[in-house]
Amino acid sequence: MNKEELLAMETRYRANLINSLGGFKSVVLIGTRDTNGLENLSIFSSLFHLGANPALCGLIVRPDVSERHTLENIIETGSYTINHLHKDIAVKAHQTSARYTKEQSEFEQVGLTPLYKEGIYAPFVHESVVRFACEFREMVPLQINGTILVIGEIVHIDIPSEIIAESGFVNIEAAGTLTCSGLDSYHTTQKLVQLSYAKPDQWPREI
Amino acid sequence: MNKEELLAMETRYRANLINSLGGFKSVVLIGTRDTNGLENLSIFSSLFHLGANPALCGLIVRPDVSERHTLENIIETGSYTINHLHKDIAVKAHQTSARYTKEQSEFEQVGLTPLYKEGIYAPFVHESVVRFACEFREMVPLQINGTILVIGEIVHIDIPSEIIAESGFVNIEAAGTLTCSGLDSYHTTQKLVQLSYAKPDQWPREI
Repeated sequence: MNKEELLAMETRYRANLINSLGGFKSVVLIGTRDTNGLENLSIFSSLFHLGANPALCGLIVRPDVSERHTLENIIETGSYTINHLHKDIAVKAHQTSARYTKEQSEFEQVGLTPLYKEGIYAPFVHESVVRFACEFREMVPLQINGTILVIGEIVHIDIPSEIIAESGFVNIEAAGTLTCSGLDSYHTTQKLVQLSYAKPDQWPREI
Repeated sequence: MNKEELLAMETRYRANLINSLGGFKSVVLIGTRDTNGLENLSIFSSLFHLGANPALCGLIVRPDVSERHTLENIIETGSYTINHLHKDIAVKAHQTSARYTKEQSEFEQVGLTPLYKEGIYAPFVHESVVRFACEFREMVPLQINGTILVIGEIVHIDIPSEIIAESGFVNIEAAGTLTCSGLDSYHTTQKLVQLSYAKPDQWPREI
C-alpha cells in the first residue's frame, strides 16, 4: 500500500496497522508517585535503549490523559521505575492503561503491590522479576507529532543474579519477560540463537 | 546494584547488561543506497513506533562506522526501507553489522537479495516477509550522549494480506518476525494473549 492508501484509512485501523509494523516492542510498567505520595502505574510499549555509558533509556510519551500522570510525576519528582512484565501479571498490567483518575492508584485498582527501596522515590512493582529505576535527565518535545521523548539515566538495577551471564548479558527470557506487538498483543519468547560479534572475514558463531 | 557499581563496571559488561534491561527489542534490516547507487544494508535494534497519524517511526543511530553509512545515505537520498527478520535470515542479518567498507554491499557480502519497487529509491530485502519504506523527515541530535534520533514517515507498506486482521492488526508472529535482546540474542515469539481496550470499570477480555 502507498501513502495515499495510508492517509485514507480509518483512524483505528491505521493505528493498529502502524503500531504493528515496527516489530516486537518492549512492554513495561512505569511506577511513579507525585510529591504528595499519590502512586501511579502505567503500561508503556515505547521504552528503548539509548546508551550504555552513561546508562540511558528513552520513552515516548503521548500527552493524553493516562500517560500524562506518569509524565507529570517524572518531571515533578525526577524518579521513575521500569518493571518488566511476565505472564502472571499481563492482564493486570494491560488494565493499568484504563483511564483512572489521578486520585486512583493503579496498583490498588489492578491488584499489584508497590515496593519501595531506599534512596528511590518512585515505587517498583513487587511482582516483577526484572526492574530498575531511572532519574529524569531530559525532555525532548518532538514537534513533528506533539509527542515527547523522555530521557532517563538508570541509577538502580534489581535482577536475580542467576540470570546475569558472565558477559553481563541478562537472560530476560529466563525471567519470563514478555514482548508485545501492536497495541494489545502479548507474547512470550523462545531463544533462536545468540551470535558472536560480527567481523567482515568470517561468519558469526553461536555463543 | 546502584549507580556507583554501574560506573565501575568494565565497558563491555555494562554494554551487555544495559542493552538487556530495556526488554525485548525490534530488530530490522535497513536498506539504503547512496546517490551513486552503492547499496547498504545494516541491522538495527533501535527502531521504534512514534505515531500512526502521520505514520512515523524513530531510529537511534550511533555515529560509528557501520551505522554511519546508513545515516549518510538516509540524509543524502531521503529514502530507506525497514525489513523484518525471520529465522532463515537471522545469521545473515547479524553479519551485516560487520565493518564492511562503503564500497562493499552488505547484500552481496552476506547473501541477501536487493529488491526495488517503483517510486522507492532504497532497496528492500527480497527475503523479508514484512517490509516498508520511509521518507526521511527529521534528525534530532541527542546531546546527552551524541546519538541521533532519525524520524521517518512510512510511505509504502508491503505485507502479505493474509496476516492483516480486520482491525488492521498485523500478525507479525505468523510472519515469523524475530525479536532480540541485548546485543546479539535472537528470539521467536509465542502469543500469550491479545486483550480488549482497557476501561476503568471492567477487566479486559481476550480478543
